[in-house]
Formats: sequence, structure tokens, C-alpha cells
Amino acid sequence: MIKIGIVGGTGYTGVELLRILATHPQAQLTAITSRKEDGLPVADMYPSLRGRVDVAFSSPEKAKLHECDVVFFATPHGVAMSQAPELVAAGVKVIDLAPDFRLQDVAQFEKWYGMPHTCTDLLKEAVYGLPELNREAIKTARVIGNPGCYPTTMQLGFAPLLKAGIVDAANLIADCKSGVSGAGRKLDVGYLFAEASDSFKAYGVSGHRHLPETVEQLQHLTKDKVGLIFTPHLVPMIRGMHSTLYARLTKEISNADLQALFEDAYKDEPFVDVMPFGAHPETRSTRGSNMLRIALHRPADCNMLVVLVVQDNLVKGSSGQAVQCMNLMFGLDESTGLMHVPVMP
Amino acid sequence: MIKIGIVGGTGYTGVELLRILATHPQAQLTAITSRKEDGLPVADMYPSLRGRVDVAFSSPEKAKLHECDVVFFATPHGVAMSQAPELVAAGVKVIDLAPDFRLQDVAQFEKWYGMPHTCTDLLKEAVYGLPELNREAIKTARVIGNPGCYPTTMQLGFAPLLKAGIVDAANLIADCKSGVSGAGRKLDVGYLFAEASDSFKAYGVSGHRHLPETVEQLQHLTKDKVGLIFTPHLVPMIRGMHSTLYARLTKEISNADLQALFEDAYKDEPFVDVMPFGAHPETRSTRGSNMLRIALHRPADCNMLVVLVVQDNLVKGSSGQAVQCMNLMFGLDESTGLMHVPVMP
Amino acid sequence: MIKIGIVGGTGYTGVELLRILATHPQAQLTAITSRKEDGLPVADMYPSLRGRVDVAFSSPEKAKLHECDVVFFATPHGVAMSQAPELVAAGVKVIDLAPDFRLQDVAQFEKWYGMPHTCTDLLKEAVYGLPELNREAIKTARVIGNPGCYPTTMQLGFAPLLKAGIVDAANLIADCKSGVSGAGRKLDVGYLFAEASDSFKAYGVSGHRHLPETVEQLQHLTKDKVGLIFTPHLVPMIRGMHSTLYARLTKEISNADLQALFEDAYKDEPFVDVMPFGAHPETRSTRGSNMLRIALHRPADCNMLVVLVVQDNLVKGSSGQAVQCMNLMFGLDESTGLMHVPVMP
Amino acid sequence: MIKIGIVGGTGYTGVELLRILATHPQAQLTAITSRKEDGLPVADMYPSLRGRVDVAFSSPEKAKLHECDVVFFATPHGVAMSQAPELVAAGVKVIDLAPDFRLQDVAQFEKWYGMPHTCTDLLKEAVYGLPELNREAIKTARVIGNPGCYPTTMQLGFAPLLKAGIVDAANLIADCKSGVSGAGRKLDVGYLFAEASDSFKAYGVSGHRHLPETVEQLQHLTKDKVGLIFTPHLVPMIRGMHSTLYARLTKEISNADLQALFEDAYKDEPFVDVMPFGAHPETRSTRGSNMLRIALHRPADCNMLVVLVVQDNLVKGSSGQAVQCMNLMFGLDESTGLMHVPVMP
Repeated sequence: MIKIGIVGGTGYTGVELLRILATHPQAQLTAITSRKEDGLPVADMYPSLRGRVDVAFSSPEKAKLHECDVVFFATPHGVAMSQAPELVAAGVKVIDLAPDFRLQDVAQFEKWYGMPHTCTDLLKEAVYGLPELNREAIKTARVIGNPGCYPTTMQLGFAPLLKAGIVDAANLIADCKSGVSGAGRKLDVGYLFAEASDSFKAYGVSGHRHLPETVEQLQHLTKDKVGLIFTPHLVPMIRGMHSTLYARLTKEISNADLQALFEDAYKDEPFVDVMPFGAHPETRSTRGSNMLRIALHRPADCNMLVVLVVQDNLVKGSSGQAVQCMNLMFGLDESTGLMHVPVMP
Repeated sequence: MIKIGIVGGTGYTGVELLRILATHPQAQLTAITSRKEDGLPVADMYPSLRGRVDVAFSSPEKAKLHECDVVFFATPHGVAMSQAPELVAAGVKVIDLAPDFRLQDVAQFEKWYGMPHTCTDLLKEAVYGLPELNREAIKTARVIGNPGCYPTTMQLGFAPLLKAGIVDAANLIADCKSGVSGAGRKLDVGYLFAEASDSFKAYGVSGHRHLPETVEQLQHLTKDKVGLIFTPHLVPMIRGMHSTLYARLTKEISNADLQALFEDAYKDEPFVDVMPFGAHPETRSTRGSNMLRIALHRPADCNMLVVLVVQDNLVKGSSGQAVQCMNLMFGLDESTGLMHVPVMP
Repeated sequence: MIKIGIVGGTGYTGVELLRILATHPQAQLTAITSRKEDGLPVADMYPSLRGRVDVAFSSPEKAKLHECDVVFFATPHGVAMSQAPELVAAGVKVIDLAPDFRLQDVAQFEKWYGMPHTCTDLLKEAVYGLPELNREAIKTARVIGNPGCYPTTMQLGFAPLLKAGIVDAANLIADCKSGVSGAGRKLDVGYLFAEASDSFKAYGVSGHRHLPETVEQLQHLTKDKVGLIFTPHLVPMIRGMHSTLYARLTKEISNADLQALFEDAYKDEPFVDVMPFGAHPETRSTRGSNMLRIALHRPADCNMLVVLVVQDNLVKGSSGQAVQCMNLMFGLDESTGLMHVPVMP
Repeated sequence: MIKIGIVGGTGYTGVELLRILATHPQAQLTAITSRKEDGLPVADMYPSLRGRVDVAFSSPEKAKLHECDVVFFATPHGVAMSQAPELVAAGVKVIDLAPDFRLQDVAQFEKWYGMPHTCTDLLKEAVYGLPELNREAIKTARVIGNPGCYPTTMQLGFAPLLKAGIVDAANLIADCKSGVSGAGRKLDVGYLFAEASDSFKAYGVSGHRHLPETVEQLQHLTKDKVGLIFTPHLVPMIRGMHSTLYARLTKEISNADLQALFEDAYKDEPFVDVMPFGAHPETRSTRGSNMLRIALHRPADCNMLVVLVVQDNLVKGSSGQAVQCMNLMFGLDESTGLMHVPVMP
């Protein structure tokens, strides 16, 4: 059994980790920290876990995280980098669901997150936790920067095209839509039901924190200079993410070959489903599961390829992906504990 | 492995059976029938099942249901009673998610469903599939009438009170609220998103088909004459059911004793959670799971007890309960394949 | 033109007042106060008002409310009673959308709102602003306690029955359901989209602030002692309220006579619509309008009457009713500026 | 008073016309046809209109449409072109909310709508009813092809850029999102609440009927060849449309000048609101109103302009725009009867 600690389990990525780990056959939840909720049984905050998760929140001091095999950080940025060095020194693996270990470009981190990076040594060895593109490095990593939700969809949607060198890398567009849980359990007027329901809007169009991480990773896939316009939107739904990706083809290629390119790229992936050419994936087809689905479109008489990508932002876009990384790091089958069938309708 | 057939798997109870059975360790889905969709892979209709359910719909003629160990009917009323005799004769157990085998009072069946009952012999031996009240009979049954969604909440909420003889059985009120999936995948203008979203209404206030079944079952629990006002409402949510039950106490009893009564009644039940006195269960705390939660309230200075009951109408209210019955019928642990943690948020 | 001031216009009842007053032919919005948002154009907070409302929020000091003809308080409890005396002394009429002037029983106010009532003199002359039951008194009032949203539905639903003396007044039940805007624009985790969407729950079952106000008013309609069980629920919709009322008939009376009783009671009311016997009103049929709709049901063979009442909680349940009162107080036609057709779908 | 007929008023554009016309000071609804609902009072189908619209549906034979001043067609394609000639010959003006008179290119009409165009004579004189681009022609038109909902947003968002000749017209992208009411009141499984709620998807990515109409109109604004990728998506909300438009700038131009270009283009328009540069308009800020809002964004260091456009698809995107055209055709102030303040929240 893997002894597991969670730092900051009161938010949505935290409770989603708990949901997944509760039925993971190799997981033994040892500690979950919350200074504010010290002593409160987790199931009192989240009645969905009544009878399934017995632990209580504990203050960081009591939590004995250094006795864990792995610690997940489901915290705001800045927390993981302050605690990771001590844990790693104690032999504990660290998986950060926040951005502290995602961006190798420290200047970019500091620009977008408005704080100095205090743990650049560990950052250098940290591995970006996207198994489909980074599997081998994850297996031996001590520190994982778990990808953001939007970046997961953009990378898995653009990767085969950039690797094949068949699109204009400098002019990519990602028009992305997220359910409201992507904003976390944060108290902000804009996320109130009466504000966010029955409405739709873009946000952060002039700049969003998930952009630099995505560009940095995409740049590893091509020698061409990557340029990306990323437009996030808020959808009145709880979970789910839909990215509509636009890439201009620079080579003649048939639709069948495009389809084959994607099917080949992901044929052994347990959590990437390439749907038939021209399909319209729905976010709900991934609800509660670690599956990400992709479909290709080529509007008539045109060299523009449209790639549709859907996932559950809290699973493949966050906590599920983190457990997928954990499985790899501990030599388990990658899909252990992650075979939830999507809840539909 | 239990060889399983499903008749009429294109609706919500059908796809929910498929979701549950896909990870049930003892279930082997052998056939799923749909005359209209013969040959269509199930996953083409329900992309959420891509990679998880391999079977295709087949016409009833090809389905070889008589070779199954058990056949679930996820069909409109009238279908199960026409096919059950032949299956039972072939040694196949039958679990009907529709009402054909719920009501022992044939006149009531014919009044509410507008058709003659053509299988009264089997009806006589059929067992009402509510494990918490009927466990032993289910274990040896050949035919199960799986309870309706509303009746499950009303029975489990009222049962301890009626058994204890401490409420006015003649004047029970159940004000019940259901998510829209309760109406099935039926094409009806009133269930369109643009009609049912952002609105709330009652329906069937003058009379609803789930009333006679509930009264018949409740009557088994008390010698007093049961009278029940049942008011169903439609909630703009997909899954979930919330029943607010009103019962007038006829004996002096403390809140602590009431709470103890319920906790005792359900203390060994894997799928009934009695929450602390005064709690307000949310339907989402059961989403995607077979759990039903109950909480008691006693508005100040008053002999009226208010019982709040929540469940996922498609799981404990339908397909999950059917699998719970199957487990009992085949000697498995009752919770086999049913330990999904609710998806929250 | 009526010169109008609004205190505390940043919440939902405030912005709804602004929406209604923007097209009211006799209304001239003079000032709207918010200490926190001093100087901010109202339309910057509420873009729906761009081009339609030109005023900016101003601090109370600058607002010159004493020069208004009427001031609406769209504030938390406690504010109106602190400012009303000075305004009334200056000849300004006061309409409080909060509870300060609703409850004549000061002890009840203090019990439920946890603060002393500091303005009991004005309270004595204050008029409860439900035009259908209190029209003449409203016309000459200086201070109006505008009814709560739930109480409006309960009173208009029970009133004809209590006046006629045909129901058991001691055992009324109101099972009520409200859209989330009823909670205001308050930052509370439970009202976040990801918490309140796709779920349903009861709240305040053991006691809710709208109970004493309702009982006090209902008691004026009958010599029998009124007893009321009131169970509020939260519906995943923005606007809308549905109250399901249960009253036991104590006299023999036909359904036709019951229907006539209600039709007669409300035949001259511009904002009460008695639907045909057995109808199921939807909340959306009142969305954005000041209309309240009622329908009666009599479940078979039973002396229980079920009364269904729907309204838009922000209009007839709050700001629309306040404007209706204003119209009466200033001698205008009662429906002036209130003839919005419900927005449907 | 303008005598008005409506053909096919049982759908959402029909009921929205009724809502608007019910408070239009110059409108007199004379007839509304529905063969199927002949004799049914409109308010029986749409209780939101109880007390506000007195007419009943009548069969086309009885409707005496030729005595009207104007007839709106809120019908599927093919109906208006079959009835318009007779009406126009009788001196009746025709406003078609369907596509029969939108596309001058008959081959395109026949390709996308799969039927021959039987009324090409009238089509030639028909005017495309987008007042902001076509005002003078509308004033004297006998037949109006009222624009589709998506096309309205795309045209008003791209028009200033194309007229100014500062973008790459051949490579426009429109990523558009619509509420479910855009699909009409059609019985289709995909629009059921339990299917469309809490999910998001694209549809018609390979080709959508609103594309040719948009390209045809945009082409009038520029000598460059227009190329447009149009990707529609379905949002789980009732009303509202959000178009995210991408255009590559071909000239050096400052953000201030871009903003000025749009503000100048629409400075006299009653129903186009150019928001501050960098704003994020929400669809709900237009709910129930005829207002369309636009905001510009320029992601850092980039020649890509992002234009955000929102509207209520049933008002400015359909019925409101049709009434706006009617006002122009009958010499009324353009905003007569259209000054609804958006319903928010």
C-alpha cells in the first residue's frame, strides 16, 4: 500500500483526489492537512464521502507528511515549493496539482504568479506530469508538476500535429471552455450560481496563466516557433472542459491520414480516445472519469483543421492525472483505480 | 460470472445498468436488445461507454436471452410481463425495472397503467425488490419487481415510523422532487432543456402511478390504515431525488429516541445513511452512487416530524437497486460492484 | 415624477428595483447609495443596465435622500430602522425590502434577527406591504414593511381558505422551493455554482425567519389559532419560487366551490392569476414579471387541499411588490411600470 | 395601429414575437396561425401570456392574413416562400424569420436547405433585415429575410474591420456558442434537459446553414475574398449567444484606434453597445432585450484581434430584430416597443 498525504484537501481537486483514492486498491490515505479545519472529519465537509473516507483534517504540524510515500499538494500556488524540499529530502515523492513545478522558465512563473520562485533547485529536476508525452520521466521523478486543465487538452490536441510538422505552429488558436468547478471552491461573486448559471462569457482573454505552461511544453515538440492564442470561457456546468483547437495545415494531407496520425499517436493510451473523424464529443461523455476524447474536423475546401478535445477538468484535467502519475511513479499499472465509467446522463 | 441480458437498454435505466455492470466483477453482459437499434454498438449511442462496453444492440430474436442467468427489463410497462413467463420457465431470473411486477393488486395495476395484467401467475410469486425491507424474499425470488424511484424514498423514510406505530398512518404527506432523468429519455416537449431548465413545477398532483405501489407496501408495515398524499415535482437537475416527508407523531417521543429509531433500523444497511438529527442532505451527495441518505427534523414546539430523504434516482432509485437485488439473488455480497463514491461536485 | 432614492443597491433586490424603475414612467431615480462603491456607475457593476441607468453609487453622506419622495431600503436587516426616522421626519416615505418593519411582535423580531429593534415607534404605524390583503392601509402609509418572498406565496395561497374558515388553521404545511437568487448576492460557499447547481436540498427546516412574519399575518385572517410547518428548499434555478401548500378541509365543499372561492377573492387583482383547477403552474411562467399564479388540487378521495403558488421571487416576491406599494402610496394606477410580460423560455 | 399576423406561432420565435408585441404600443395582433392548434388560446399553450395575449391559434384558412399590414413567418424553411407572393400581391408586408429570403444565391439555398426555391422573383427584391448594415433598404422593403442568430453576431462583429480593410478577410474564424433555445422547440433527443444540461459540445463543425448567409453578406463589405471558419457550439443555457471572433490584422493599428473604429461605427445604434476595450461581456447582460454587446481584445504581442459579441438569440438574434425591421418599415421610431431592460440575474 502506498501511504498518501494530501496538503490542502478542502478544495475541489482535494475532494476529487479523495474520491479517486477511496477506491484505489493500493492507496492508503494517511493524512490530509488543513490548518483551518484541524480535527474536522473530511466527511463532515463533504457528505458524499460519509462512510467512505474516515480521516479528519489535521494541522500541518500533526500530519507527519514525511512518513508518507507520496504527498499531493492541492493548494494555491506557492505552497508546494515551500514544503517540497523537506519532503523530498525525507524520501517522499511530491505531486503538485498547482503550478509551482510546471514552468521551467522561472521568469515566466514570476511574471504570471506574482511571486518569486523559492525552490529552483527542485524545479530543475521536476517533471511535467503529462503521461502521454512524458511517461518515462514521470516513472523516475521525485517531483511532479501536474499539468493545468486547459494545458492538458491543448497539448494532447496539438501534439500529433506539431510532432508531424504539418501545421503552422506560429498561429495556433485554442478557444477553450470550462465548467465552473475549474475556478475552484473560491468565494468570488462571479462564481455564484445566480451569476454563472444560464449565462456564458469569456475571461482572461488578454492573458491567462495557463498560456506560458502550454507554450513551453508545445515548444518541446517542434523546432518551429510556437505562437498560441488562448481564449478561455466559462460554461454554466459543474465539470467538463471543451477545447476547440484551430491549426492551419501547411502540407497536403488527406483526412484519412490526419485521422491515422492521431489514432497512431494514442493507440496505446488508456485515457485518450480518438473518436471517428467528424464526431462531436460532449463533455459529459467524460464526467467523473479520467478519459479525454478527441475528434477531428476539416471544414469544407479549406486547409484549417479543427480539433475538438473534451475531458473532465477535475479528473484528467487534475486529480485523475495526478493519480495516473502516482501509478507510474510507484510501478503500478497506469490505470489502477482510474477505471471509472463516465456518469451519463 | 453471471450471464446477463438486458431488454430495452436504450433508455436511462438501461445505460445506467451498463455503467454499473461494466465494473461489476461478477457480471458478464451477454445480450442487450433493441429492435430499432439492432446491430448498433452500444457505445455508438452512448459514447461514455466507448472502450468499456463492447456489445451491440441486437433484435430480441437474436439475443438468446434464455441462455442468460438473469435478464433485466429496462422497458416501458407491459413488456416484462409478456416475456417473463418463457424466461422463468427456462430457468432465467427476471428483474423488471418497470411496474409489471410491483403491484400485487391487479385492479390497481390495470387502473393506473391502462392495460390488463397478462401474467398474474408470476405476479403472485414476484418479490418487491426493496432489499432493506424484503431481503430474505429477494434472495430466493425468480421474479423481482424493482421499486420505483419515488417509492424507494417514501418507504425507507416512513418505514421505521410505521413499524414503531408512532405516527398517524392515515395522514402521511410526501412532497417529492425529482431530477429530469426520472422521466426517462422520452421525447416530450416538457422535458426539453429550454422548457425544464431554470424552472420548477409540480406534476401529477391529482394522481401519480407511484402512489398505489407505495401505499400497498407501506400497508404491510402497520395495522393502521395508510393514507398518503404524494406530490411529485420536477427539479431542473439531471439526477437526484429529494423527498420531504411529513408524519404527525401520535406518541410522546424525544428527538434522540427518534434518531435512535432510525439509526437502529438501518445500522447494518450498506446503502442507507442516517445523518445527524437536523442535517440537510443534498441530492448531489449521492450522485452516481447507490447511497440513500436520511435526516430527521422536528420544527419547534410541534408534533410534526419531517423526514428528508435523498438518493440518485437512477441508482438507488432504479438500476443500482436492481443490481443490489441481483447480488442477493446470486449469493454475492450485496454491495458487489456498487461501491461508487458519489461524484461531487 | 416621483423622486426616488435607493439605499444599498448592490444586491439583487436593488438591481431589480433599478430594472423596474428604468422603464417606470413616473419614476426619477435620484440617488442610490453604497458606501463601498461610492462613485462607481451602477452600469459598471451591472452591465445589463448600460445605457439605461445613468446614476452612480454615492456614499450615504452625499446622497441627499431627504430630498427624495420615497426611499427604498434594499439592505440587510437593521439598516432601515436606523435611517427611517430621520427620513420620515423629513416627509420622505420609506419602503423597506428587509424585515425591519414587517413584524409587529418585537420579541419575535429580536429572537429571529438577533438584534434589538431600535425604532418601535415607527414600527407601530408601519404597514405590511401586501396590497392584495392590505391595500387601503398601504395607500396612506409612511413606512412600508415589504413582505418576504416566501410569505407572499404562503399568504396569498392560504388567505381565501382562512377567511372562509374552511380549513384546519392549526395544521397548515407549506413546502416551499426557491431559486438561488433568493439568498441574495451573498458570498457563501453553498451558493457557488459548483455547489448549488444540479442538486436540491432543504434548508432551515428547523426554523426560518420568514415563519413568524407569515404566522403573524395569517393570524389576522382567522379567529382560529394558526399553526404552520414551513419547509424551505433551494432549487438550482436563478429566479422563481414554488410553494406547495397543504390544508385540511374542515367543511364539505366541492372543487368547483373551492375554485370559485379563489377566483372571487382575486378577481380584481392585476397580479394574481388563479389558473384552472388542477393546473400545474411553472415558475418560469412568471419570470421577470410581477405576476403570481395559483392552482388548486384535491388528491382523490381526500379532504386535503393542495394549493400551488408560483412567483418570481425578485419581482412579486420583492422589488416588484415594493413598486406596487409605491404606486399605491403615490396615487398611481397600481400596475404602472409593472406590466412586463414574463420571459419565456 | 399596425395589424399583425403571425404564421406558425407555436415555436420559440413565435412566442417571443408575442411577448414583444404584447407591449408594443402600435401593434395589434390580428391573427396567429397553427393548423394543428386551431382554436386553442395562445395563453393555454404559453401560460406566461395569460391575461396578456387574448388571441387563439387559428387555421390558415380562417386567419385572413391578407387583411394584415404585416405578416411574420415564424416557421420552418419553405413556408414563407410558398405564401409570400399572395400576401405581397395583397399589399401585405412580409417578414420571414426563417431562411427563405436571406440568401440571394439560390444555388446555395438549395444546397443547404435541400429544396428548390419556389419564389425567386420575390427573393430578388427581398431585403436582408439587419438594420445596422441595411437600414435604408429595410424602410422600403416589401419582403424581409430576417437574419439568423449566429449571422447577426458575426456580421456586426466583423463589419467595421472589413469595411476598414484592416484584416485578413480570407481567414476569419468565428467560434460561436448558443443557448439551447436556438434549436427551437423541436423534439430531438439531444435537446432534452437530461442530455443538454451540465454538458458542452460543438455541432455542425463540418458545415452549418448559417455559414453561406454570413459569407454572402460579409462579402458585400469588402473587395477581398471572404473566407470564414464557423464553429457552432451548444451551451447549457436557455437563451444567449456568444461569438468569439478571430481576425488577423493586416495593418499597424493601435488598440485605441480599433476601439474608436467600433465606437464610431455604432455610435448612433440603439441596439449595439460597444463596451470598453478588454471587457468580457456576458450573455445574461442581454437576456430578454434587443441589445447586442461587443468588446475587443488584443492578446499580447500579436496581430490577432479577438472580438467578443453577445446577444439574446431570441431577441436581437430573431424576434426582436424582426420587430426592429417592422418599426423601420412602418416609419416608427426604430426602438418602439423594444426597450426591455435585460433581466439580470
